[in-house]
Amino acid sequence: MANTFEVPQPGNELLKKADQVRFASIKVSQTENHIRIKALNFMADYLEKNTKEILDANNEDYKNAERKGISNALLFRLKLSKEKLNLGIEGIRKVGELADPVNQIQIKRELSKGLVLERKTVPIGVLGVIFESRPDAVMQISALAIRSGNGVILKGGSEANLTNTAIVNALQEGLFESGIDKNAICLLKSRKDSMSMLNLENYINLIIPRGSNELVKFIQENTRIPVLGHADGICHLFIDNEANLEVALSVALDSKIQYPAACNAIETLLVHKEIAPVFLEKAIPLFNSNKVKLIGDKRSVELGLKYEATLEDWQTEYLDLILSIKIVDDLDEAITHIRKFSSKHTDGIITENLSAANKFMNEVDSAGVFHNCSTRFADGFRYGFGAEVGISTQTLPPRGPVGLEGLVTYKYFLKGNGNIVKDFSYGKAIYTHKDL
Amino acid sequence: MANTFEVPQPGNELLKKADQVRFASIKVSQTENHIRIKALNFMADYLEKNTKEILDANNEDYKNAERKGISNALLFRLKLSKEKLNLGIEGIRKVGELADPVNQIQIKRELSKGLVLERKTVPIGVLGVIFESRPDAVMQISALAIRSGNGVILKGGSEANLTNTAIVNALQEGLFESGIDKNAICLLKSRKDSMSMLNLENYINLIIPRGSNELVKFIQENTRIPVLGHADGICHLFIDNEANLEVALSVALDSKIQYPAACNAIETLLVHKEIAPVFLEKAIPLFNSNKVKLIGDKRSVELGLKYEATLEDWQTEYLDLILSIKIVDDLDEAITHIRKFSSKHTDGIITENLSAANKFMNEVDSAGVFHNCSTRFADGFRYGFGAEVGISTQTLPPRGPVGLEGLVTYKYFLKGNGNIVKDFSYGKAIYTHKDL
Repeated sequence: MANTFEVPQPGNELLKKADQVRFASIKVSQTENHIRIKALNFMADYLEKNTKEILDANNEDYKNAERKGISNALLFRLKLSKEKLNLGIEGIRKVGELADPVNQIQIKRELSKGLVLERKTVPIGVLGVIFESRPDAVMQISALAIRSGNGVILKGGSEANLTNTAIVNALQEGLFESGIDKNAICLLKSRKDSMSMLNLENYINLIIPRGSNELVKFIQENTRIPVLGHADGICHLFIDNEANLEVALSVALDSKIQYPAACNAIETLLVHKEIAPVFLEKAIPLFNSNKVKLIGDKRSVELGLKYEATLEDWQTEYLDLILSIKIVDDLDEAITHIRKFSSKHTDGIITENLSAANKFMNEVDSAGVFHNCSTRFADGFRYGFGAEVGISTQTLPPRGPVGLEGLVTYKYFLKGNGNIVKDFSYGKAIYTHKDL
Repeated sequence: MANTFEVPQPGNELLKKADQVRFASIKVSQTENHIRIKALNFMADYLEKNTKEILDANNEDYKNAERKGISNALLFRLKLSKEKLNLGIEGIRKVGELADPVNQIQIKRELSKGLVLERKTVPIGVLGVIFESRPDAVMQISALAIRSGNGVILKGGSEANLTNTAIVNALQEGLFESGIDKNAICLLKSRKDSMSMLNLENYINLIIPRGSNELVKFIQENTRIPVLGHADGICHLFIDNEANLEVALSVALDSKIQYPAACNAIETLLVHKEIAPVFLEKAIPLFNSNKVKLIGDKRSVELGLKYEATLEDWQTEYLDLILSIKIVDDLDEAITHIRKFSSKHTDGIITENLSAANKFMNEVDSAGVFHNCSTRFADGFRYGFGAEVGISTQTLPPRGPVGLEGLVTYKYFLKGNGNIVKDFSYGKAIYTHKDL
């Protein structure tokens, strides 16, 4: 719990803003479904209307960033083309079409005569979102926040300040048009504010970081506010001795190269010693021809790999065309390795042996445990959630890919007619506990 | 985030123990429902068989504690009578009768042809339980842990070490008899270990503190492991101007005096200014005759209260026959006061006006929002959960009284036949997203 950096206490201006968002969030949380849908449509409309202003602002940001010499990768993420903007607008409308996550009744129970308990989903309150560059994130996350009845405090990279301001202005106009307090969406602009957010535990109920592993790790270590997300994504695929060789090769390749920078791409391949010679004989040229650098343990080097792995390789999320390979004696060794090095994101097994598959899926304690398919399926859209808030690698819910349901919590509503507990102590009243 | 005390790093012996529990917990998590039920019954049987050893050990602890001059309250909680032990044994059998929280299917969905996603509840892993005195807690929490397929590391007050050891021995004999690794229940005995537990984030998935507000607060501030529980329980009751006077008096009294040391007892009564004169005229003598000390704001002092409240009173959980009273101008002022001072445990309103009740219940963001009934109903048993792990005042789930469902999480199981993501990029495969 060492702080490498002192997170500043929020100043008065930030506290005032946070209070405005909190106040607005109470109002949003009370709006009916159709109002929130209307708000999203107006938000999309105003982004369309303000297209020119937004793209001009982005041009300005881009030119300033170029002048400052920021990296090409960052410049690429900063650039908001008309197409990217339109995709964002389309995305907002789509979030409007998703089922309302609020006011879902989870429990309805008569506790005693005239005393009825309801557990209903309610918005979390205020979300704090910290993201790097990528102005499209502002649109997506604001849409998700309003759809789920929450307020949101946004802090983007300062290099995108003009763009983000133009976008948030349009979003606020949309909110206003639908009768919702425009303070429900708030943009912070200084880096100091972004860090102070981490100390706003009385105002912000959930932090959602969107950015590098380092950013997420820093946030997780420097706030008492719950954080939805994950730092590392060290995913494994285990090729069992009873694997179908063709499936093994195809899934291993897809899991690594389909999009190597994704968190659900594999970093380590574990191979059963009995299948290792025949698997590697085919896998090595296949990975080579796809420009994947293979780094392996001693045994796999003996079977033809060029580079020998160190402890660090099992702990590294390459996010690149690099794959570490380890040959294991059996399923148990594979599970033990995964339990030790996995970041509990997604781990898979390739086997035709159902009991091996079951053992693997039950004993590996990751958010996703996959059998005979690519780890790249670990994603909210692919799971059918419609929208993804993020992927959580913590053990407690929400876990794995999180859709709108990650932006609501629940509350117990108890309605009586004067019921008191004393009456139960001498039999005047009794518990019925009847689900309604 | 200031540490007033350095939490020690776990030593090798503790790490070894924790690893044993983690290993055992994997095995427990795979056991079928009937095995876990059998284990609870054997645990109860062995406690019965070992009654003499356990009571003797408790006598010894008690004598040592007396000699050391520990407080009467602590002595009272330490004392394990035959009746208390039998109640604990009975409790274990009852937990066995509750529905299995594990392996509940929450989502079953075809993502694409031959690719099926399941979300199932799974045990959390290893629970870390820190409690003061009260040897009965060992029985209850061990039963809940095993019922939900978890391992548990227990640390009780050192004054109950002999008792706790005797109890855990019996519980482990029961586990062993049912074929479960006895290391699934582990007792730590030194205070150093108890504190080091807070740094076992790689071994413990959830901390459950059972003890004073100070203990809970200390734990919350000194661990990165999720904590299930709450420190303060500052509950409010608001008497609206449209309250039924009789209901208001009866519920206010019950909420305060039925068990003042409980977390769900009220500490502050908010009274609408229009009903205040007539309400206080009857309430003051009623509370006086029940020995409740009333401390009020200026306006309620003008209406007959003897003691004037300071800011501190609105922030204090008295846990005693003391009640603070504040007169408010309207419903909004009551809600604002509650949002500011409530610990988000349980807050209630007394009114015959349904729209006032709804506004209150929607805008107060506490785990429990009650209408025309006593706050004392906020309790897992009364809610019909059968057993209570604790009451959580955090915003995210699990929230409010938590039953066995608080001791499980979920995992995504994805089963395919070689499905790869690449095939979806050029139309060879499509997403069907069909719930099964």
